[in-house]
Amino acid sequence: MSGIIGIYEKNNMGVAFLAHLGLMALQHRGQQSAGIAVCNKEEIRCLKNKGLVSDVFTQESLNELKGNMCLGHVKYGMEAADVIEYTEPFCLSDKFSCKAMAMSGSFVNGQKLKRDLLEQGSILTTNSDVELFACLIGKSKTDKILEAVSDAMKIIKGSYTITILTENEIIAVRDPLGIKPLTIGELKDGYAISSESCAFDIMGGKLIRDVLPGEIVLINENGLESYQTKKDEIKAICAFEYVYFARPDSYMDKLSINRARERAGEILYKEHPVDADVVIVIPDSGTPAALGFSKESKIPFANGLLKNRYVGRTFIEPTQSMREEGVKIKLNPMRDVVEGKRIVLVDDSIVRGTTTQNIIKALRNVGAKEIHVRISSPTVRASCYFGVDTSDEQNLIANILTVDEIRKKIGADSLGFISVEGLYKSLNSLGSGYCMGCFTKEYPMEV
Amino acid sequence: MSGIIGIYEKNNMGVAFLAHLGLMALQHRGQQSAGIAVCNKEEIRCLKNKGLVSDVFTQESLNELKGNMCLGHVKYGMEAADVIEYTEPFCLSDKFSCKAMAMSGSFVNGQKLKRDLLEQGSILTTNSDVELFACLIGKSKTDKILEAVSDAMKIIKGSYTITILTENEIIAVRDPLGIKPLTIGELKDGYAISSESCAFDIMGGKLIRDVLPGEIVLINENGLESYQTKKDEIKAICAFEYVYFARPDSYMDKLSINRARERAGEILYKEHPVDADVVIVIPDSGTPAALGFSKESKIPFANGLLKNRYVGRTFIEPTQSMREEGVKIKLNPMRDVVEGKRIVLVDDSIVRGTTTQNIIKALRNVGAKEIHVRISSPTVRASCYFGVDTSDEQNLIANILTVDEIRKKIGADSLGFISVEGLYKSLNSLGSGYCMGCFTKEYPMEV
Amino acid sequence: MSGIIGIYEKNNMGVAFLAHLGLMALQHRGQQSAGIAVCNKEEIRCLKNKGLVSDVFTQESLNELKGNMCLGHVKYGMEAADVIEYTEPFCLSDKFSCKAMAMSGSFVNGQKLKRDLLEQGSILTTNSDVELFACLIGKSKTDKILEAVSDAMKIIKGSYTITILTENEIIAVRDPLGIKPLTIGELKDGYAISSESCAFDIMGGKLIRDVLPGEIVLINENGLESYQTKKDEIKAICAFEYVYFARPDSYMDKLSINRARERAGEILYKEHPVDADVVIVIPDSGTPAALGFSKESKIPFANGLLKNRYVGRTFIEPTQSMREEGVKIKLNPMRDVVEGKRIVLVDDSIVRGTTTQNIIKALRNVGAKEIHVRISSPTVRASCYFGVDTSDEQNLIANILTVDEIRKKIGADSLGFISVEGLYKSLNSLGSGYCMGCFTKEYPMEV
Amino acid sequence: MSGIIGIYEKNNMGVAFLAHLGLMALQHRGQQSAGIAVCNKEEIRCLKNKGLVSDVFTQESLNELKGNMCLGHVKYGMEAADVIEYTEPFCLSDKFSCKAMAMSGSFVNGQKLKRDLLEQGSILTTNSDVELFACLIGKSKTDKILEAVSDAMKIIKGSYTITILTENEIIAVRDPLGIKPLTIGELKDGYAISSESCAFDIMGGKLIRDVLPGEIVLINENGLESYQTKKDEIKAICAFEYVYFARPDSYMDKLSINRARERAGEILYKEHPVDADVVIVIPDSGTPAALGFSKESKIPFANGLLKNRYVGRTFIEPTQSMREEGVKIKLNPMRDVVEGKRIVLVDDSIVRGTTTQNIIKALRNVGAKEIHVRISSPTVRASCYFGVDTSDEQNLIANILTVDEIRKKIGADSLGFISVEGLYKSLNSLGSGYCMGCFTKEYPMEV
Repeated sequence: MSGIIGIYEKNNMGVAFLAHLGLMALQHRGQQSAGIAVCNKEEIRCLKNKGLVSDVFTQESLNELKGNMCLGHVKYGMEAADVIEYTEPFCLSDKFSCKAMAMSGSFVNGQKLKRDLLEQGSILTTNSDVELFACLIGKSKTDKILEAVSDAMKIIKGSYTITILTENEIIAVRDPLGIKPLTIGELKDGYAISSESCAFDIMGGKLIRDVLPGEIVLINENGLESYQTKKDEIKAICAFEYVYFARPDSYMDKLSINRARERAGEILYKEHPVDADVVIVIPDSGTPAALGFSKESKIPFANGLLKNRYVGRTFIEPTQSMREEGVKIKLNPMRDVVEGKRIVLVDDSIVRGTTTQNIIKALRNVGAKEIHVRISSPTVRASCYFGVDTSDEQNLIANILTVDEIRKKIGADSLGFISVEGLYKSLNSLGSGYCMGCFTKEYPMEV
Repeated sequence: MSGIIGIYEKNNMGVAFLAHLGLMALQHRGQQSAGIAVCNKEEIRCLKNKGLVSDVFTQESLNELKGNMCLGHVKYGMEAADVIEYTEPFCLSDKFSCKAMAMSGSFVNGQKLKRDLLEQGSILTTNSDVELFACLIGKSKTDKILEAVSDAMKIIKGSYTITILTENEIIAVRDPLGIKPLTIGELKDGYAISSESCAFDIMGGKLIRDVLPGEIVLINENGLESYQTKKDEIKAICAFEYVYFARPDSYMDKLSINRARERAGEILYKEHPVDADVVIVIPDSGTPAALGFSKESKIPFANGLLKNRYVGRTFIEPTQSMREEGVKIKLNPMRDVVEGKRIVLVDDSIVRGTTTQNIIKALRNVGAKEIHVRISSPTVRASCYFGVDTSDEQNLIANILTVDEIRKKIGADSLGFISVEGLYKSLNSLGSGYCMGCFTKEYPMEV
Repeated sequence: MSGIIGIYEKNNMGVAFLAHLGLMALQHRGQQSAGIAVCNKEEIRCLKNKGLVSDVFTQESLNELKGNMCLGHVKYGMEAADVIEYTEPFCLSDKFSCKAMAMSGSFVNGQKLKRDLLEQGSILTTNSDVELFACLIGKSKTDKILEAVSDAMKIIKGSYTITILTENEIIAVRDPLGIKPLTIGELKDGYAISSESCAFDIMGGKLIRDVLPGEIVLINENGLESYQTKKDEIKAICAFEYVYFARPDSYMDKLSINRARERAGEILYKEHPVDADVVIVIPDSGTPAALGFSKESKIPFANGLLKNRYVGRTFIEPTQSMREEGVKIKLNPMRDVVEGKRIVLVDDSIVRGTTTQNIIKALRNVGAKEIHVRISSPTVRASCYFGVDTSDEQNLIANILTVDEIRKKIGADSLGFISVEGLYKSLNSLGSGYCMGCFTKEYPMEV
Repeated sequence: MSGIIGIYEKNNMGVAFLAHLGLMALQHRGQQSAGIAVCNKEEIRCLKNKGLVSDVFTQESLNELKGNMCLGHVKYGMEAADVIEYTEPFCLSDKFSCKAMAMSGSFVNGQKLKRDLLEQGSILTTNSDVELFACLIGKSKTDKILEAVSDAMKIIKGSYTITILTENEIIAVRDPLGIKPLTIGELKDGYAISSESCAFDIMGGKLIRDVLPGEIVLINENGLESYQTKKDEIKAICAFEYVYFARPDSYMDKLSINRARERAGEILYKEHPVDADVVIVIPDSGTPAALGFSKESKIPFANGLLKNRYVGRTFIEPTQSMREEGVKIKLNPMRDVVEGKRIVLVDDSIVRGTTTQNIIKALRNVGAKEIHVRISSPTVRASCYFGVDTSDEQNLIANILTVDEIRKKIGADSLGFISVEGLYKSLNSLGSGYCMGCFTKEYPMEV
């Protein structure tokens, strides 16, 4: 998914520190690389590298990124992981000026665009969509930057949110369907753009509104201006943002992510009621849904699985034989909560099913009497073409097995997924405005 | 506090991998350094360094630590943080054999012991208590290692748990009052020793029992043997382990840490009832108490503060002025949970009060109507002499201010601490068996 | 200056190891960054980073660079040192294929080319000349790669040697004046290109000939082909390569660098004879000239200054006061060689004069009776526009002071520079074929 | 061999910077680890680690080593290379005070001392001789530190030079035979001790004299005091220091190392005259001998082998087949110097013969007509028991083959070693005062 930030403050030459805070808040959107580009009226400087925000930046390096305008980016791991060239912001010169650009999303017509650009004499130094966007701007016939951006948007198909830093301004765009989220915040002395509103909280700012589908926002010393390109009739905001990606303290399209998830938990109970002793959750993203389920069902919530906060993404595993026994490295069941109890186990999604299966086994090992699995998203049955890495369709368990077959496979006593209608309802919608392609195989554009 | 591990498996030359897993589970007991020493019948090899377990070990380095007996150690940060000499296991030769030793605890008579040993001609290469213990063993008149250990225990006063790895066996000891926890686990092909039982879960083993106060445990190819030295009449298990240090999925003295905390939350409500809309908690250690409070009071529990999991221990802060505004870096209040609500804010302790004060301010900023603070430990009023780093007494807010003055200082509408009696009750005790010196200034030995 | 390598071996998928060796041999041409790009018929992979060759590559990383064609590059430190984007090989796609490119040299019309390309719609991601070359190739109207290269060479003015790796071949070009050196070597199973012939020795190959001024060389499975673009009437090989840059064991234009320097030393004595006890040298580059001076003058050569081989490029200096006393960190005078003696001190050039001044002071401190400085290049009076970083003209001591004023400043008893004619003679030339702009301010093209 | 430093300056709290410079000058004596311990009247602080001096220290870390007395150490690689515990200075407390100690040398009775100390109740944390020395001091019956040092020296047999830093003074000792070198220098505001005098040059100080065999030197605020313990009748200074180890700009026992080597070259020619065109050397340590040979023989000296200064100690080699072809990675023959010439190849020693063999092959490959090898030390036939790592006796080529057999093996046209008498002569001695055990198998003590 990636996360992007743009900041303009009239008289604060230390906006890189704000961007750093904002990227900490967006870290959940991408852990592959991080970068900040800053403009100090004379030149654009950029620091980016593989790793977490906390790996890439130091007090000293942020001090050297002086300027009152900047971009930030955290990268989600879809592309070749080791290639440092793919880190963003992407920096370049074109006929307009020097630029830095950061993007979250994915072009559907990227391969065709690439072929066309090469044929027309362009060279490309990365395999990224953001460079294609940059080339389109550079080749535009107009000498007005906003027109050039608007021209490029006409050629591109797909999901995207892009921030552009020039020597004079920050420009932010959101795709005409609004698939990816992008929000505008107010700071003490300026404005900020962020994939999610939680970044404004950490920066001491506040959310004003979402960037609209198809909108181009311009921020400079004159304040904030908006240009609406032709937008699509419909919106198609990614439902998976609400289900899984976004941070619960963010608001998207005026909706609290936390509240939407809690509501999904409530609806989930109504759709799949069960009699049990305790509601537990696979930490952390399913917690609001589990609390909603508990509230609606009056079944008490408890911490049934202890997460080891020190286990990182790469972990040295012991021998194969030990692994097969189901060593409880990241999650340890709480015997005193689980033993002899009828358990409701809530999670936000089942993609391949192996984690759920292992956890159920571990819960049985400490004496769970019954295990009822409740999932706060519908069955994931199709690939995403807009930037979510949902493995191949043949690996999606719900694409191969029926719900009851899944139940047997993972070893649950019962299994219920929220319905697509239930999910719409949790989003205050009667059935439109969201892309639910991964659940329904119906996409808002040809893919 | 530190955490220690000892493992013996008859035919598994890869016990270092098990120790690594165990140390991951004990990481919360110390993040300053980590180490593993292993014996392969011929020699003892040791790898240790500053940093987290995941920083110190790699697949390759664990592969080179071949052996079927080992020790592990994670160090709590009380001593000079940068001195690599203080990492453990401490390795040495003495008249008995080569050895590695790891310790959690603190000697009360360490300074005197040190003076005596130097006067008698010993040299000391660190300022650690574990080296004093090693010197006492080396100087013992006996040629039997267990007698030498027992002799050393007679001279030492304080809290300690120590594991010793020789070329032939693993020895584990616990101080006569049992101040520090130490448990015995069974593995597929041997035994393990650990500060906390949660390490056995991750290793695929299971808890057998606690090492008894004053007990010496010996593990070798003949199995496990026990020697009981003269123990004190009373036990004095550190109550703060139950309140804060231990992992909730551990069992100490047959008591579930999670259940003890939950019960403390229930008692806390009974002692300080309040009418409110929602119970929230400062994550993570107070959660069981908050759930207990919620259960007893029937006030629903919600996630009111979002913890940023990517913020590490060192953090680059922005300018002073921003910091003063209360930037929400680690914890962000959830507006949709808090706004317009009467809040019960549960935490496990108040030491200096500044964190609580900042959080209350942040909650008020997003519209909390009332804030009632409930603390699941009594007021911390005294230093610990047994290894817990509770700052100087003059920094302990409960040592300076009355409860009502604290309430005003932190800006709460009401404030309640569990009573000492209440805490005893949560531990299934009528008033003995625990060291509550930091709450009561009454210690189990002269300090 | 930078150093470049290109290697093609029909059946050796490990040419990256050869390139690594070759770059070790060219390390003296640039220590700022190093890189290797390799083609395995399907894709081009590249590893490059700041630092020395030995910092950038490991056995493992070379193993992963599988392929039978490759480029290598070591970068000389003229541009912004910290910007990792400037490392080469520069990798890109264009209408022909995927490519990697490496360059040594400098375009005289780079700024104009850049403006033109941006105006025509190109974007540029670095500030390097090699990217301009790549853009020109991509925009060429032809669909034949060699024609595209030839077209680009017509537009460019300056000094350059460039190697290009495509999916099918290696292409190497040298500027029409032949300012930068480039040589062709034969390997067991193919061919190599290198800035200097010493790289062939280390690779187990042998020098065939120089790439000719204006020549395009193509190496692929059919062997080596040559295309001669219009070349200039004259050659203008950089004389400073012979004086200072090149490794003494290299041959350029059939001339041994070592022998040319030795001859310069002989001529230097003839031009500036002196009666003395011992010839010493500032190590290492002046040694051949010093030996030539010793041979011609019959004054014995000795090691008068000991170089500390462990002192790197960055050095922690003690306090200012100590530095002013002339602490002998990198070079220590040998008292037993110098004391009471009349010294001839030979060096290859004086640019700013400070080093020479400090060394003379140090030699006087250990008792040198007379110090006669002899320099095996003419006075450096002008900037280089072709890639040599000779500081600003106002810092060139020979641009400000007369020879006798320099002598006084550095504290020598006598001072002699070889004449421009003498230098030509040492190169077997009567006065043409070389660029001596830095000595004469006469350049082979408009600058 | 290791190198040690001790510095006392009355009012300079930055002596760690001087020690750092001194260790740079002694780096040739050991590249395995480096360390500095400093005393600021209150405590002793130490920084040490594996690697070169330039790897271990930074401006910042030296700034934190405040104090006016310090020790430094560079470690030679004989012991287990990876064990960080073996780095020095070794820091400890004993009944006298806190201490740091650094040593160069090797105890002959170390194993016995170790057994005795363990039996008497000591514990040992390393396998180093310096800890044994520390234990002996701590166990001494006296309460006078100098007496304790003197007592320890009576028990120890072997070669050693040790510096000791206490809270009040620096103490330096040299073994009674004077096998290892140790010198005293004068600084602006105090004194320094160093394994070699070249360290004083770099520190801006000057050599006063050698520490005498069996001497204890004490430096504190009262200046320098000397105590002579019972010394042996004879001196037995290590001849290999003159031949190979020491830096040529050092003076030992009033003799210039450079001059001694030059003289050995002169004597070598007299002992093994030859008619040839050019004298070349395997850089760097044989250079003075080669220049002496050239001077005496009137055969001109030239640089015949180019050393690649960028090739470090660890080097990635290409495939085996390439290596067998004799890839010239570190040393490249200069064709223009060698081709068609009768060569004298001078080196300081032949230990296993493989390097010489490879170089001769490489010289033949570029057309050497004749190759006459001359070695400025006698044949190395025996192990060293005093700290020099001369591999096992069965690997010493001169222990297996006759001189003529060696000549055939390495492929030389003639081969001559200086005689033992010749080496004595080069040291201004008629046959005593030096340990030549590695050449003669006659050692100055039982081994």
